[in-house]
Amino acid sequence: MTVTDHYPTRVSEEASIVDRKEPVVRGSEGDGPLSRAQLDAFDRDGFLLLENVFTAGEVDDILSELARLAALDEVKADDRTITEPESDAVRSIFEVHRIHDRFAGLAGDERVAGAARQIVGSDVYVHQSRVNFKPGFRGKEFSWHSDFETWHAEDGMPAMRAVSASIALTDNHVFNGPLMIIPGSHRRFVACVGETPEDHYKASLKAQELGVPDDQSLARLVEEAGGEIATLTGKAGSVVLFDCNAMHGSNSNITPYPRSNVFLVYNSVENRLVEPFAAPKQRPSFIAAREFTPV
Amino acid sequence: MTVTDHYPTRVSEEASIVDRKEPVVRGSEGDGPLSRAQLDAFDRDGFLLLENVFTAGEVDDILSELARLAALDEVKADDRTITEPESDAVRSIFEVHRIHDRFAGLAGDERVAGAARQIVGSDVYVHQSRVNFKPGFRGKEFSWHSDFETWHAEDGMPAMRAVSASIALTDNHVFNGPLMIIPGSHRRFVACVGETPEDHYKASLKAQELGVPDDQSLARLVEEAGGEIATLTGKAGSVVLFDCNAMHGSNSNITPYPRSNVFLVYNSVENRLVEPFAAPKQRPSFIAAREFTPV
Repeated sequence: MTVTDHYPTRVSEEASIVDRKEPVVRGSEGDGPLSRAQLDAFDRDGFLLLENVFTAGEVDDILSELARLAALDEVKADDRTITEPESDAVRSIFEVHRIHDRFAGLAGDERVAGAARQIVGSDVYVHQSRVNFKPGFRGKEFSWHSDFETWHAEDGMPAMRAVSASIALTDNHVFNGPLMIIPGSHRRFVACVGETPEDHYKASLKAQELGVPDDQSLARLVEEAGGEIATLTGKAGSVVLFDCNAMHGSNSNITPYPRSNVFLVYNSVENRLVEPFAAPKQRPSFIAAREFTPV
Repeated sequence: MTVTDHYPTRVSEEASIVDRKEPVVRGSEGDGPLSRAQLDAFDRDGFLLLENVFTAGEVDDILSELARLAALDEVKADDRTITEPESDAVRSIFEVHRIHDRFAGLAGDERVAGAARQIVGSDVYVHQSRVNFKPGFRGKEFSWHSDFETWHAEDGMPAMRAVSASIALTDNHVFNGPLMIIPGSHRRFVACVGETPEDHYKASLKAQELGVPDDQSLARLVEEAGGEIATLTGKAGSVVLFDCNAMHGSNSNITPYPRSNVFLVYNSVENRLVEPFAAPKQRPSFIAAREFTPV
Protein backbone atom coordinates (compact mmCIF):
# COMPACT_ATOMS: atom_id res chain seq x y z
CA MET A 1 0.00 0.00 0.00
CA THR A 2 1.39 3.37 -0.98
CA VAL A 3 0.36 6.31 1.16
CA THR A 4 0.76 9.77 -0.30
CA ASP A 5 2.80 12.16 1.83
CA HIS A 6 0.68 15.30 2.13
CA TYR A 7 3.07 16.87 4.63
CA PRO A 8 6.67 16.56 3.44
CA THR A 9 9.06 17.70 6.20
CA ARG A 10 12.79 17.44 7.00
CA VAL A 11 13.56 17.11 3.31
CA SER A 12 14.62 20.61 2.36
CA GLU A 13 17.00 23.29 3.58
CA GLU A 14 14.13 25.76 3.42
CA ALA A 15 11.24 25.88 5.86
CA SER A 16 7.77 26.26 4.37
CA ILE A 17 4.17 26.47 5.54
CA VAL A 18 1.30 24.59 3.88
CA ASP A 19 -2.39 24.40 4.71
CA ARG A 20 -3.96 21.50 6.57
CA LYS A 21 -5.71 19.00 4.27
CA GLU A 22 -8.16 17.36 6.70
CA PRO A 23 -11.10 18.66 8.71
CA VAL A 24 -10.42 19.34 12.41
CA VAL A 25 -13.73 18.19 13.92
CA ARG A 26 -15.76 15.36 12.33
CA GLY A 27 -18.27 14.47 15.05
CA SER A 28 -21.45 16.27 16.10
CA GLU A 29 -23.07 17.33 19.31
CA GLY A 30 -24.63 14.22 20.83
CA ASP A 31 -21.80 11.94 19.70
CA GLY A 32 -19.96 12.56 22.98
CA PRO A 33 -19.51 14.81 26.00
CA LEU A 34 -18.69 18.03 24.11
CA SER A 35 -21.29 20.67 23.25
CA ARG A 36 -21.62 22.31 19.84
CA ALA A 37 -19.98 25.46 21.21
CA GLN A 38 -17.06 23.42 22.55
CA LEU A 39 -16.64 21.61 19.24
CA ASP A 40 -16.72 24.94 17.42
CA ALA A 41 -14.09 26.41 19.74
CA PHE A 42 -11.84 23.38 19.20
CA ASP A 43 -12.35 23.67 15.46
CA ARG A 44 -11.41 27.36 15.47
CA ASP A 45 -8.57 27.40 18.02
CA GLY A 46 -7.21 23.86 17.88
CA PHE A 47 -7.62 23.39 21.62
CA LEU A 48 -10.18 23.40 24.41
CA LEU A 49 -9.75 23.83 28.15
CA LEU A 50 -12.20 21.86 30.30
CA GLU A 51 -12.25 22.83 33.99
CA ASN A 52 -13.14 20.47 36.86
CA VAL A 53 -13.21 17.28 34.81
CA PHE A 54 -11.57 15.19 37.51
CA THR A 55 -12.35 15.65 41.20
CA ALA A 56 -9.73 16.47 43.84
CA GLY A 57 -10.13 12.91 45.14
CA GLU A 58 -9.43 11.39 41.71
CA VAL A 59 -6.37 13.62 41.26
CA ASP A 60 -4.99 12.66 44.70
CA ASP A 61 -5.50 9.01 43.86
CA ILE A 62 -3.61 9.34 40.57
CA LEU A 63 -0.80 11.34 42.21
CA SER A 64 -0.19 8.76 44.91
CA GLU A 65 -0.15 5.94 42.35
CA LEU A 66 2.41 7.90 40.35
CA ALA A 67 4.60 8.63 43.36
CA ARG A 68 4.60 4.90 44.06
CA LEU A 69 5.50 4.07 40.43
CA ALA A 70 8.24 6.71 40.11
CA ALA A 71 9.95 5.36 43.23
CA LEU A 72 10.16 1.76 41.96
CA ASP A 73 13.65 0.71 40.86
CA GLU A 74 12.21 -1.31 37.97
CA VAL A 75 10.34 1.78 36.71
CA LYS A 76 13.43 4.01 37.10
CA ALA A 77 15.50 1.52 35.12
CA ASP A 78 12.84 1.08 32.45
CA ASP A 79 13.54 2.37 28.92
CA ARG A 80 10.14 3.97 29.03
CA THR A 81 11.23 6.29 31.85
CA ILE A 82 12.94 9.53 30.83
CA THR A 83 15.09 11.55 33.24
CA GLU A 84 15.98 15.26 33.29
CA PRO A 85 19.06 16.19 31.16
CA GLU A 86 20.99 17.53 34.16
CA SER A 87 19.80 15.26 36.95
CA ASP A 88 18.37 11.85 37.61
CA ALA A 89 14.87 13.11 38.36
CA VAL A 90 12.08 11.33 36.50
CA ARG A 91 10.68 13.62 33.82
CA SER A 92 8.33 11.31 31.98
CA ILE A 93 7.03 7.74 32.13
CA PHE A 94 5.79 6.46 28.78
CA GLU A 95 3.08 3.90 28.10
CA VAL A 96 1.77 4.44 31.59
CA HIS A 97 -1.63 3.03 30.57
CA ARG A 98 0.06 -0.35 30.06
CA ILE A 99 2.21 -0.22 33.18
CA HIS A 100 -0.69 0.16 35.55
CA ASP A 101 -4.43 -0.62 35.53
CA ARG A 102 -5.28 2.74 37.07
CA PHE A 103 -3.99 4.43 33.92
CA ALA A 104 -5.57 1.95 31.57
CA GLY A 105 -8.84 2.98 33.17
CA LEU A 106 -7.97 6.64 32.77
CA ALA A 107 -7.18 6.17 29.07
CA GLY A 108 -10.63 4.67 28.56
CA ASP A 109 -12.46 7.26 30.64
CA GLU A 110 -15.43 8.59 28.69
CA ARG A 111 -14.67 12.19 29.73
CA VAL A 112 -11.48 12.15 27.65
CA ALA A 113 -11.74 9.16 25.29
CA GLY A 114 -15.35 10.11 24.48
CA ALA A 115 -14.33 13.66 23.63
CA ALA A 116 -11.52 12.35 21.44
CA ARG A 117 -13.90 10.05 19.53
CA GLN A 118 -16.28 12.94 19.08
CA ILE A 119 -13.57 15.16 17.63
CA VAL A 120 -11.97 12.69 15.23
CA GLY A 121 -15.33 11.14 14.30
CA SER A 122 -14.46 7.47 14.74
CA ASP A 123 -13.18 4.96 17.25
CA VAL A 124 -9.77 5.82 18.68
CA TYR A 125 -6.78 3.93 20.08
CA VAL A 126 -4.01 5.23 22.33
CA HIS A 127 -1.11 6.26 20.12
CA GLN A 128 0.97 7.36 23.10
CA SER A 129 0.51 7.82 26.83
CA ARG A 130 2.84 9.35 29.34
CA VAL A 131 3.08 11.12 32.64
CA ASN A 132 5.13 14.32 32.76
CA PHE A 133 6.74 15.77 35.83
CA LYS A 134 7.98 19.33 35.40
CA PRO A 135 9.79 20.11 38.63
CA GLY A 136 9.72 23.43 40.44
CA PHE A 137 12.77 25.74 40.67
CA ARG A 138 14.55 24.25 37.65
CA GLY A 139 11.79 23.17 35.23
CA LYS A 140 13.13 23.45 31.69
CA GLU A 141 11.42 25.15 28.80
CA PHE A 142 10.07 23.11 25.90
CA SER A 143 10.53 24.54 22.40
CA TRP A 144 7.60 25.19 20.08
CA HIS A 145 6.58 22.17 18.06
CA SER A 146 3.70 20.42 16.35
CA ASP A 147 3.40 16.86 17.64
CA PHE A 148 2.03 15.81 14.27
CA GLU A 149 5.24 16.89 12.56
CA THR A 150 7.15 14.32 14.63
CA TRP A 151 4.45 11.64 14.50
CA HIS A 152 4.27 12.00 10.73
CA ALA A 153 8.01 12.14 10.11
CA GLU A 154 9.18 9.60 12.68
CA ASP A 155 6.13 7.38 13.28
CA GLY A 156 4.32 7.34 9.94
CA MET A 157 1.05 8.91 11.05
CA PRO A 158 -0.55 9.69 7.67
CA ALA A 159 -3.11 12.40 8.44
CA MET A 160 -4.06 14.98 11.06
CA ARG A 161 -6.70 12.95 12.80
CA ALA A 162 -5.42 12.61 16.35
CA VAL A 163 -6.11 14.58 19.50
CA SER A 164 -4.17 14.90 22.73
CA ALA A 165 -5.58 15.17 26.23
CA SER A 166 -3.47 16.67 28.98
CA ILE A 167 -4.93 15.98 32.42
CA ALA A 168 -3.56 18.46 34.98
CA LEU A 169 -2.42 16.82 38.23
CA THR A 170 -1.16 20.11 39.68
CA ASP A 171 -2.43 23.67 39.30
CA ASN A 172 -1.22 25.39 36.16
CA HIS A 173 -0.51 29.03 36.93
CA VAL A 174 0.72 31.68 34.50
CA PHE A 175 4.06 31.59 36.30
CA ASN A 176 5.00 27.90 36.46
CA GLY A 177 5.58 27.16 32.81
CA PRO A 178 2.08 26.29 31.61
CA LEU A 179 1.31 24.93 28.16
CA MET A 180 1.18 27.67 25.51
CA ILE A 181 -0.59 27.20 22.18
CA ILE A 182 -0.75 29.46 19.13
CA PRO A 183 -4.49 29.62 18.33
CA GLY A 184 -5.34 28.50 14.81
CA SER A 185 -1.86 27.08 14.18
CA HIS A 186 -3.42 23.60 13.79
CA ARG A 187 -4.62 24.66 10.31
CA ARG A 188 -1.08 25.24 9.07
CA PHE A 189 1.77 22.79 8.71
CA VAL A 190 5.32 24.03 9.13
CA ALA A 191 7.72 21.81 7.23
CA CYS A 192 10.95 21.71 9.24
CA VAL A 193 14.49 21.65 7.91
CA GLY A 194 17.08 18.95 8.55
CA GLU A 195 17.19 15.17 8.30
CA THR A 196 16.24 12.73 11.08
CA PRO A 197 19.26 10.81 12.40
CA GLU A 198 18.88 7.22 13.61
CA ASP A 199 17.52 6.84 17.16
CA HIS A 200 16.81 10.55 17.25
CA TYR A 201 14.07 9.98 19.83
CA LYS A 202 16.57 9.34 22.64
CA ALA A 203 17.89 12.88 22.41
CA SER A 204 14.64 14.53 21.34
CA LEU A 205 12.75 13.38 24.42
CA LYS A 206 15.18 15.37 26.56
CA ALA A 207 15.43 18.52 24.48
CA GLN A 208 13.96 18.71 21.01
CA GLU A 209 16.16 20.30 18.36
CA LEU A 210 15.01 18.67 15.14
CA GLY A 211 11.40 19.06 14.06
CA VAL A 212 11.43 22.51 15.60
CA PRO A 213 10.08 25.26 13.38
CA ASP A 214 12.24 28.22 12.43
CA ASP A 215 11.75 31.63 14.05
CA GLN A 216 10.24 33.19 10.95
CA SER A 217 7.52 30.54 10.60
CA LEU A 218 6.68 30.85 14.30
CA ALA A 219 6.45 34.62 14.07
CA ARG A 220 4.16 34.19 11.08
CA LEU A 221 1.82 31.79 12.92
CA VAL A 222 1.58 34.22 15.85
CA GLU A 223 0.90 37.05 13.40
CA GLU A 224 -1.85 34.99 11.74
CA ALA A 225 -3.32 34.48 15.23
CA GLY A 226 -3.60 38.27 15.58
CA GLY A 227 -0.61 38.30 17.90
CA GLU A 228 -2.28 35.97 20.36
CA ILE A 229 -0.66 33.18 22.33
CA ALA A 230 -2.95 31.15 24.60
CA THR A 231 -1.65 30.32 28.08
CA LEU A 232 -3.46 27.23 29.37
CA THR A 233 -3.86 27.79 33.08
CA GLY A 234 -6.27 25.69 35.13
CA LYS A 235 -6.62 23.87 38.41
CA ALA A 236 -5.58 20.29 39.01
CA GLY A 237 -8.29 18.08 37.52
CA SER A 238 -8.76 20.27 34.44
CA VAL A 239 -8.13 18.86 30.96
CA VAL A 240 -6.72 20.49 27.84
CA LEU A 241 -7.70 18.81 24.59
CA PHE A 242 -5.57 19.86 21.65
CA ASP A 243 -5.21 18.98 18.02
CA CYS A 244 -2.18 16.92 16.98
CA ASN A 245 -0.96 19.78 14.80
CA ALA A 246 -1.42 22.66 17.27
CA MET A 247 1.86 24.55 17.68
CA HIS A 248 2.71 24.45 21.38
CA GLY A 249 5.55 24.81 23.88
CA SER A 250 6.24 26.05 27.38
CA ASN A 251 8.61 28.39 29.17
CA SER A 252 10.84 27.40 32.06
CA ASN A 253 9.65 27.21 35.65
CA ILE A 254 11.76 28.84 38.38
CA THR A 255 8.89 28.91 40.89
CA PRO A 256 8.54 26.37 43.71
CA TYR A 257 5.38 25.03 42.00
CA PRO A 258 5.93 21.77 40.08
CA ARG A 259 3.73 20.81 37.15
CA SER A 260 2.58 17.27 36.50
CA ASN A 261 0.13 15.89 34.00
CA VAL A 262 -1.05 12.73 32.33
CA PHE A 263 -0.80 13.00 28.59
CA LEU A 264 -2.93 10.74 26.36
CA VAL A 265 -2.87 10.77 22.58
CA TYR A 266 -5.86 9.33 20.78
CA ASN A 267 -5.54 8.54 17.11
CA SER A 268 -8.40 7.57 14.81
CA VAL A 269 -8.47 3.84 14.00
CA GLU A 270 -8.85 5.03 10.40
CA ASN A 271 -5.49 6.80 10.62
CA ARG A 272 -3.22 3.96 11.71
CA LEU A 273 0.51 4.26 11.33
CA VAL A 274 2.43 3.29 8.20
CA GLU A 275 6.20 3.53 7.65
CA PRO A 276 7.85 6.75 8.88
CA PHE A 277 7.67 9.52 6.27
CA ALA A 278 11.03 11.06 7.15
CA ALA A 279 13.08 8.79 9.38
CA PRO A 280 15.30 5.75 8.76
CA LYS A 281 13.31 3.47 11.09
CA GLN A 282 10.28 3.26 13.36
CA ARG A 283 10.47 4.49 16.93
CA PRO A 284 9.80 1.99 19.75
CA SER A 285 6.15 1.08 20.28
CA PHE A 286 6.08 2.60 23.77
CA ILE A 287 6.40 5.98 22.01
CA ALA A 288 4.24 5.20 18.98
CA ALA A 289 1.87 2.27 19.43
CA ARG A 290 1.44 -0.15 16.55
CA GLU A 291 -1.40 -2.05 18.14
CA PHE A 292 -4.59 -0.37 17.06
CA THR A 293 -7.16 -1.79 19.48
CA PRO A 294 -9.93 0.77 20.08
CA VAL A 295 -10.39 2.01 23.66
CA MET B 1 33.98 54.85 60.13
CA THR B 2 32.74 51.41 61.09
CA VAL B 3 29.40 50.36 59.71
CA THR B 4 27.59 47.51 61.43
CA ASP B 5 26.60 44.68 59.12
CA HIS B 6 22.91 44.06 59.79
CA TYR B 7 22.64 41.58 56.94
CA PRO B 8 25.50 39.07 57.02
CA THR B 9 25.46 36.92 53.87
CA ARG B 10 27.82 34.55 52.04
CA VAL B 11 29.60 33.79 55.32
CA SER B 12 28.04 30.51 56.39
CA GLU B 13 27.32 27.11 54.88
CA GLU B 14 23.74 27.41 56.12
CA ALA B 15 21.11 29.66 54.61
CA SER B 16 19.01 31.71 57.03
CA ILE B 17 16.23 34.26 56.93
CA VAL B 18 16.18 37.41 59.07
CA ASP B 19 13.71 40.27 59.31
CA ARG B 20 14.25 43.61 57.61
CA LYS B 21 15.54 46.32 59.97
CA GLU B 22 14.46 49.48 58.12
CA PRO B 23 11.09 50.92 57.20
CA VAL B 24 10.01 50.42 53.56
CA VAL B 25 8.28 53.75 52.92
CA ARG B 26 9.42 56.96 54.64
CA GLY B 27 7.68 59.70 52.66
CA SER B 28 4.07 60.85 52.73
CA GLU B 29 1.37 61.67 50.23
CA GLY B 30 2.14 65.11 48.88
CA ASP B 31 5.91 64.51 48.86
CA GLY B 32 5.73 63.17 45.31
CA PRO B 33 3.58 61.66 42.58
CA LEU B 34 2.33 58.61 44.55
CA SER B 35 -0.97 58.55 46.42
CA ARG B 36 -1.41 57.25 49.97
CA ALA B 37 -2.98 54.04 48.58
CA GLN B 38 -0.02 53.53 46.26
CA LEU B 39 2.48 54.10 49.06
CA ASP B 40 0.55 51.63 51.24
CA ALA B 41 0.56 49.02 48.47
CA PHE B 42 4.30 49.45 47.99
CA ASP B 43 4.82 49.16 51.74
CA ARG B 44 2.80 45.95 51.91
CA ASP B 45 3.88 44.19 48.70
CA GLY B 46 7.32 45.64 48.03
CA PHE B 47 6.34 46.72 44.53
CA LEU B 48 3.92 48.87 42.56
CA LEU B 49 2.83 48.70 38.93
CA LEU B 50 2.07 52.08 37.31
CA GLU B 51 0.31 51.88 33.95
CA ASN B 52 0.61 54.49 31.16
CA VAL B 53 3.42 56.49 32.74
CA PHE B 54 5.21 57.09 29.45
CA THR B 55 3.37 57.78 26.21
CA ALA B 56 3.74 55.66 23.08
CA GLY B 57 5.66 58.56 21.53
CA GLU B 58 8.13 58.68 24.41
CA VAL B 59 8.65 54.92 24.25
CA ASP B 60 9.26 55.00 20.48
CA ASP B 61 11.76 57.80 20.97
CA ILE B 62 13.65 55.80 23.63
CA LEU B 63 13.60 52.63 21.53
CA SER B 64 15.07 54.31 18.48
CA GLU B 65 17.81 55.91 20.57
CA LEU B 66 18.63 52.49 21.99
CA ALA B 67 18.67 50.79 18.60
CA ARG B 68 21.15 53.45 17.49
CA LEU B 69 23.33 52.93 20.60
CA ALA B 70 23.29 49.12 20.44
CA ALA B 71 24.48 49.22 16.82
CA LEU B 72 27.54 51.38 17.55
CA ASP B 73 30.84 49.47 17.50
CA GLU B 74 32.15 51.54 20.40
CA VAL B 75 29.11 50.60 22.50
CA LYS B 76 29.38 46.90 21.54
CA ALA B 77 33.05 46.88 22.54
CA ASP B 78 32.40 48.77 25.78
CA ASP B 79 32.93 46.97 29.12
CA ARG B 80 29.56 48.31 30.14
CA THR B 81 27.83 46.28 27.43
CA ILE B 82 26.89 42.69 28.33
CA THR B 83 26.14 40.05 25.72
CA GLU B 84 24.05 36.86 25.89
CA PRO B 85 25.95 33.78 27.19
CA GLU B 86 25.42 31.82 23.96
CA SER B 87 25.47 34.55 21.36
CA ASP B 88 26.81 37.99 20.69
CA ALA B 89 23.45 39.73 21.10
CA VAL B 90 23.46 42.75 23.41
CA ARG B 91 21.67 41.84 26.63
CA SER B 92 22.34 44.92 28.74
CA ILE B 93 24.00 48.30 28.51
CA PHE B 94 25.05 49.69 31.90
CA GLU B 95 25.34 53.31 32.97
CA VAL B 96 23.14 54.27 30.08
CA HIS B 97 22.24 57.57 31.81
CA ARG B 98 25.89 58.61 31.43
CA ILE B 99 26.28 57.36 27.88
CA HIS B 100 23.49 59.45 26.47
CA ASP B 101 21.66 62.67 27.43
CA ARG B 102 18.28 61.16 26.62
CA PHE B 103 18.78 58.67 29.45
CA ALA B 104 20.18 61.24 31.84
CA GLY B 105 16.90 63.06 31.33
CA LEU B 106 14.95 59.88 31.92
CA ALA B 107 16.82 59.20 35.18
CA GLY B 108 15.83 62.64 36.42
CA ASP B 109 12.21 62.39 35.27
CA GLU B 110 9.91 63.37 38.12
CA ARG B 111 7.54 60.47 37.36
CA VAL B 112 10.18 57.97 38.45
CA ALA B 113 12.81 59.92 40.42
CA GLY B 114 10.04 61.75 42.29
CA ALA B 115 8.40 58.47 43.25
CA ALA B 116 11.75 57.09 44.41
CA ARG B 117 12.40 60.17 46.60
CA GLN B 118 8.94 59.83 48.05
CA ILE B 119 9.49 56.18 48.96
CA VAL B 120 12.97 56.46 50.51
CA GLY B 121 12.16 59.82 52.15
CA SER B 122 15.23 61.77 51.02
CA ASP B 123 17.12 62.90 47.97
CA VAL B 124 18.31 60.05 45.76
CA TYR B 125 21.19 59.39 43.37
CA VAL B 126 21.44 56.77 40.62
CA HIS B 127 23.18 53.71 42.04
CA GLN B 128 22.90 51.84 38.75
CA SER B 129 21.24 52.28 35.38
CA ARG B 130 20.94 49.87 32.53
CA VAL B 131 18.92 48.87 29.54
CA ASN B 132 17.92 45.21 29.27
CA PHE B 133 17.07 43.43 26.06
CA LYS B 134 15.43 40.03 26.58
CA PRO B 135 15.16 38.60 23.11
CA GLY B 136 12.23 36.60 21.78
CA PHE B 137 12.51 32.86 21.00
CA ARG B 138 15.55 32.25 23.21
CA GLY B 139 15.21 34.66 26.14
CA LYS B 140 16.87 33.08 29.16
CA GLU B 141 15.34 32.78 32.60
CA PHE B 142 16.74 34.80 35.50
CA SER B 143 17.01 33.06 38.88
CA TRP B 144 15.31 34.43 41.97
CA HIS B 145 17.37 37.02 43.81
CA SER B 146 17.23 40.07 46.02
CA ASP B 147 19.22 42.90 44.43
CA PHE B 148 20.02 44.19 47.89
CA GLU B 149 21.79 40.93 48.76
CA THR B 150 24.26 41.60 45.95
CA TRP B 151 24.48 45.36 46.48
CA HIS B 152 25.16 44.81 50.19
CA ALA B 153 27.64 41.94 49.75
CA GLU B 154 29.49 43.17 46.67
CA ASP B 155 28.94 46.96 46.66
CA GLY B 156 28.75 47.88 50.36
CA MET B 157 25.21 49.25 50.39
CA PRO B 158 24.56 49.47 54.15
CA ALA B 159 20.77 49.52 54.48
CA MET B 160 17.60 48.72 52.56
CA ARG B 161 16.86 52.22 51.38
CA ALA B 162 16.91 51.97 47.60
CA VAL B 163 14.20 51.50 45.03
CA SER B 164 14.32 50.26 41.45
CA ALA B 165 12.24 51.50 38.55
CA SER B 166 11.76 49.28 35.52
CA ILE B 167 10.36 51.21 32.56
CA ALA B 168 8.76 48.82 30.03
CA LEU B 169 9.75 49.52 26.43
CA THR B 170 7.81 46.53 25.11
CA ASP B 171 4.56 44.93 26.26
CA ASN B 172 5.00 42.51 29.13
CA HIS B 173 2.65 39.58 28.64
CA VAL B 174 2.22 36.59 30.94
CA PHE B 175 3.93 34.48 28.29
CA ASN B 176 7.13 36.38 27.43
CA GLY B 177 9.06 36.03 30.65
CA PRO B 178 7.77 39.00 32.65
CA LEU B 179 9.19 40.07 36.00
CA MET B 180 7.88 37.94 38.88
CA ILE B 181 8.01 39.14 42.49
CA ILE B 182 7.14 37.32 45.72
CA PRO B 183 4.84 39.78 47.53
CA GLY B 184 6.07 40.73 51.00
CA SER B 185 9.51 39.17 50.46
CA HIS B 186 11.10 42.64 50.84
CA ARG B 187 10.53 42.35 54.61
CA ARG B 188 12.74 39.26 54.88
CA PHE B 189 16.43 38.90 54.14
CA VAL B 190 17.70 35.56 52.90
CA ALA B 191 21.37 35.14 53.78
CA CYS B 192 22.94 33.15 50.96
CA VAL B 193 25.65 30.52 51.24
CA GLY B 194 29.08 30.61 49.59
CA GLU B 195 31.90 33.10 49.32
CA THR B 196 32.26 35.79 46.64
CA PRO B 197 35.19 35.11 44.30
CA GLU B 198 37.18 37.99 42.81
CA ASP B 199 35.59 39.64 39.75
CA HIS B 200 32.45 37.62 40.34
CA TYR B 201 30.38 40.24 38.56
CA LYS B 202 31.67 39.25 35.12
CA ALA B 203 30.05 35.83 35.40
CA SER B 204 27.08 36.89 37.53
CA LEU B 205 25.86 39.42 34.98
CA LYS B 206 25.39 36.56 32.52
CA ALA B 207 23.88 33.97 34.83
CA GLN B 208 23.78 34.48 38.54
CA GLU B 209 24.78 31.49 40.66
CA LEU B 210 26.11 33.05 43.84
CA GLY B 211 23.80 35.24 45.91
CA VAL B 212 20.94 33.01 44.87
CA PRO B 213 18.71 31.81 47.69
CA ASP B 214 18.27 28.11 48.36
CA ASP B 215 15.07 26.28 47.36
CA GLN B 216 13.84 25.93 50.92
CA SER B 217 14.08 29.65 51.68
CA LEU B 218 12.29 30.47 48.43
CA ALA B 219 9.51 28.02 49.16
CA ARG B 220 9.17 29.59 52.60
CA LEU B 221 8.88 33.13 51.20
CA VAL B 222 6.16 31.97 48.79
CA GLU B 223 4.38 30.22 51.64
CA GLU B 224 4.56 33.40 53.74
CA ALA B 225 2.99 35.21 50.76
CA GLY B 226 0.02 32.84 50.95
CA GLY B 227 1.27 30.96 47.91
CA GLU B 228 1.18 34.07 45.74
CA ILE B 229 3.66 35.08 43.09
CA ALA B 230 3.01 38.37 41.30
CA THR B 231 3.45 38.44 37.53
CA LEU B 232 4.15 42.01 36.43
CA THR B 233 2.45 42.38 33.08
CA GLY B 234 1.83 45.78 31.55
CA LYS B 235 1.97 47.70 28.30
CA ALA B 236 5.03 49.47 26.99
CA GLY B 237 5.26 52.74 28.90
CA SER B 238 4.27 51.21 32.22
CA VAL B 239 6.64 51.33 35.19
CA VAL B 240 7.26 48.83 37.97
CA LEU B 241 8.73 50.29 41.14
CA PHE B 242 10.19 47.71 43.47
CA ASP B 243 12.05 47.62 46.73
CA CYS B 244 15.76 46.76 46.64
CA ASN B 245 15.12 43.65 48.73
CA ALA B 246 12.08 42.28 46.85
CA MET B 247 12.73 38.68 45.77
CA HIS B 248 12.32 38.59 42.01
CA GLY B 249 13.19 36.63 38.88
CA SER B 250 11.79 35.67 35.50
CA ASN B 251 11.13 32.58 33.42
CA SER B 252 12.48 32.03 29.93
CA ASN B 253 10.84 33.44 26.82
CA ILE B 254 10.27 31.15 23.83
CA THR B 255 7.67 33.45 22.24
CA PRO B 256 8.49 35.80 19.37
CA TYR B 257 7.87 38.77 21.69
CA PRO B 258 11.09 40.39 22.98
CA ARG B 259 11.17 42.28 26.26
CA SER B 260 13.13 45.45 26.76
CA ASN B 261 13.23 47.84 29.65
CA VAL B 262 15.20 50.68 31.17
CA PHE B 263 16.20 49.86 34.70
CA LEU B 264 17.06 52.67 37.13
CA VAL B 265 18.14 52.16 40.73
CA TYR B 266 17.74 55.08 43.11
CA ASN B 267 19.55 54.95 46.42
CA SER B 268 19.04 57.38 49.28
CA VAL B 269 21.87 59.91 49.62
CA GLU B 270 21.81 58.94 53.30
CA ASN B 271 22.63 55.32 52.38
CA ARG B 272 25.80 55.79 50.34
CA LEU B 273 28.11 52.88 49.70
CA VAL B 274 30.91 51.82 52.02
CA GLU B 275 33.31 48.90 51.51
CA PRO B 276 31.72 45.63 50.29
CA PHE B 277 30.37 43.55 53.18
CA ALA B 278 31.18 40.19 51.61
CA ALA B 279 33.50 40.55 48.63
CA PRO B 280 37.25 41.00 48.23
CA LYS B 281 36.97 44.27 46.28
CA GLN B 282 34.54 46.86 44.93
CA ARG B 283 32.77 46.28 41.62
CA PRO B 284 33.34 48.81 38.83
CA SER B 285 31.51 52.11 39.23
CA PHE B 286 29.40 51.54 36.11
CA ILE B 287 27.67 48.78 38.10
CA ALA B 288 27.70 50.50 41.48
CA ALA B 289 28.14 54.26 41.36
CA ARG B 290 30.40 55.91 43.92
CA GLU B 291 29.47 59.43 42.96
CA PHE B 292 26.52 60.40 45.10
CA THR B 293 25.20 63.50 43.33
CA PRO B 294 21.43 63.79 43.83
CA VAL B 295 19.24 63.73 40.72
